[in-house]
Amino acid sequence: MSVPVSATPGLDRFYAVIPAGGVGTRLWPLSRAAAPKFLHDLTGSGQTLIRATFDRLEDLAGSQVMVVTGQAHRDAVQEQLPDLDSRDLVLEPEPKDSAAAIGLAAAILYQRDPETIMGSFAADQVIGPVPVFQQAVREAVATAASGGDGKIVTIGIKPTYPATGFGYIHQGRALEVEGAPSAHEVDSFVEKPDEKRARSYVDSGEYLWNAGMFVAPVALMLKHLKATEPELYAGVTEIAEVWDTEERDAVIARVWPDLPKTAIDYAVAEPAADAGDVAVIPGDFTWDDVGDFAAIARLNPATDSSGITVIGETPRVYSDQASGVVVTDTSRVIALIGVENVVVVDTGDALLVTTTEHAQSVKKAVESLKAHGDNDVL
Amino acid sequence: MSVPVSATPGLDRFYAVIPAGGVGTRLWPLSRAAAPKFLHDLTGSGQTLIRATFDRLEDLAGSQVMVVTGQAHRDAVQEQLPDLDSRDLVLEPEPKDSAAAIGLAAAILYQRDPETIMGSFAADQVIGPVPVFQQAVREAVATAASGGDGKIVTIGIKPTYPATGFGYIHQGRALEVEGAPSAHEVDSFVEKPDEKRARSYVDSGEYLWNAGMFVAPVALMLKHLKATEPELYAGVTEIAEVWDTEERDAVIARVWPDLPKTAIDYAVAEPAADAGDVAVIPGDFTWDDVGDFAAIARLNPATDSSGITVIGETPRVYSDQASGVVVTDTSRVIALIGVENVVVVDTGDALLVTTTEHAQSVKKAVESLKAHGDNDVL
Repeated sequence: MSVPVSATPGLDRFYAVIPAGGVGTRLWPLSRAAAPKFLHDLTGSGQTLIRATFDRLEDLAGSQVMVVTGQAHRDAVQEQLPDLDSRDLVLEPEPKDSAAAIGLAAAILYQRDPETIMGSFAADQVIGPVPVFQQAVREAVATAASGGDGKIVTIGIKPTYPATGFGYIHQGRALEVEGAPSAHEVDSFVEKPDEKRARSYVDSGEYLWNAGMFVAPVALMLKHLKATEPELYAGVTEIAEVWDTEERDAVIARVWPDLPKTAIDYAVAEPAADAGDVAVIPGDFTWDDVGDFAAIARLNPATDSSGITVIGETPRVYSDQASGVVVTDTSRVIALIGVENVVVVDTGDALLVTTTEHAQSVKKAVESLKAHGDNDVL
Repeated sequence: MSVPVSATPGLDRFYAVIPAGGVGTRLWPLSRAAAPKFLHDLTGSGQTLIRATFDRLEDLAGSQVMVVTGQAHRDAVQEQLPDLDSRDLVLEPEPKDSAAAIGLAAAILYQRDPETIMGSFAADQVIGPVPVFQQAVREAVATAASGGDGKIVTIGIKPTYPATGFGYIHQGRALEVEGAPSAHEVDSFVEKPDEKRARSYVDSGEYLWNAGMFVAPVALMLKHLKATEPELYAGVTEIAEVWDTEERDAVIARVWPDLPKTAIDYAVAEPAADAGDVAVIPGDFTWDDVGDFAAIARLNPATDSSGITVIGETPRVYSDQASGVVVTDTSRVIALIGVENVVVVDTGDALLVTTTEHAQSVKKAVESLKAHGDNDVL
């Protein structure tokens, strides 16, 4: 905001990476294998989550944006992001968790330019105000570019309540980085806490939510990946070496299936933190990973006196003594009578009725449906 | 049961009439204009309500069964009742309330045989045990056939709770009728009471629910109809005179639209009671007019530990901490999580979510949908 783009050290080396994976099981039957969370407009903004993510990053990265997603989503992503260069659409033959997805992006970008600073931001998060987010990314880029090898820089979210559904980042002493006045060391990453511990984290003022956002020189990323997961490192490097050639498809089809499945947190972030290579920028913006329908109700306040939030293109909803959220991708008439804090998700082949209070239990329903062989609706 | 059919006085003159009207608004969106209540199986018996009604009466009436319904339901009724003679399928060009429907049936039967005793039983009621019902009808027929002109005989239901949704019959002194040991005079018909009054009715032991069932000589029916509603009487007689001829369609199309709209209670039953022409047989069977989804939940106890009653041909229902009733005519997967006493009615073009407690409010929803022009789903 106050810092012009050109003045942010390292920003000319910046490449945004958007991992677009994860079915969003707690948002079933809206979000599902064939139409995951990031392909939906869950905020009533008129934009899908992946499009909003792309727009937030394009301001900083220009055309240097890469998306990593499943092969099944190629057409949908290209439709959402027509400006995305096909070389920057990385299609996974099968899900391999975040270390493989982000590791391959890092390896491809390293092949093209070893000086690249990548920033990884999931496709299914809701963030605002955007300029505050962008300023945090600028500080992260400046911090990633600082010193010798640079830093792996997370952006942690200042917690607004003692959440038990997120991991936390314990912030260390302040760093002195040009262009990044709020940069701090990371003392440690901590797992999802119980409520009492979460409350103490929030009260201390030293902890931030781990939103899975980070900015780092690709060379430093790969150095840690090589040390922790040498087999994974070798595999993504083999693919990356032929990425911008005709051999791409053959090599990824051969190499990808055998790659280890692990999270980027274990493969890179935590070992790098132990080595003192990780910094954090506290992000003073609102952030929501839209983890369940309670989040959708929270993000979409009812716009009229009915008390019902309606999300859908052609909704026909009647309510009487009812409150909650209706998500519909059909044009059926929906009548809600005498149900409070209800969640109704109406799709062509599946219907969910629950309450915001039980929003977390949706995952269990999906697991049960899978166990019963109802895969056609998952 | 103990009385052989041949021994019931008047049974050889008996003709059953089944008025099949009424949309069943409180059962929307299952029951609706195009598929009213009587065309559904609401008890899980495998039979539609009209088929079950037909079977109950066929034991007593043989092939002498007549159905009065809307022209729109011709095909559906014929499919349900393939044995019904086409001369006995009376199709109303438009709804004209019960006096016109039952009056026309009486007039047609009178033309064929003025000695006929008709019995009118709505198509959308659930009754059991059937032999107890049939014995009450036999007593009603015997009473209708007694004396000079006979009697108009209602069958009143012994109340099991102080219902406020039904009218009551105040029973008078016992009658002495051969073959009808439980026949009583009717003191009066009383309107739907408030709860306090309903309780006093039930406590007194002198009141019965008015279930709209009656058995009467058609000549006596028409005598009262002529006195109370001469225009209606003239109209139905004009139609009846040509019913079994080729002129039927032309005459009903011309005469029917101008007939007065009124209920058989006002046109015949109440004036006849004032004239001392009405008797009652107390019916000691269970009776439910399936007025709302609470009734459906009551009539269909959950059959497994899930606490959910499911009605539908191909249900795929998952529930977790949920109870209530699901009615579905789709094959969608339905997941219910953390909702108690819920009512979910899932049809191709409309969805209702409410609770058994709010079952009566469904009518209001339908009225509101009509006011908003959503007639396509009504």
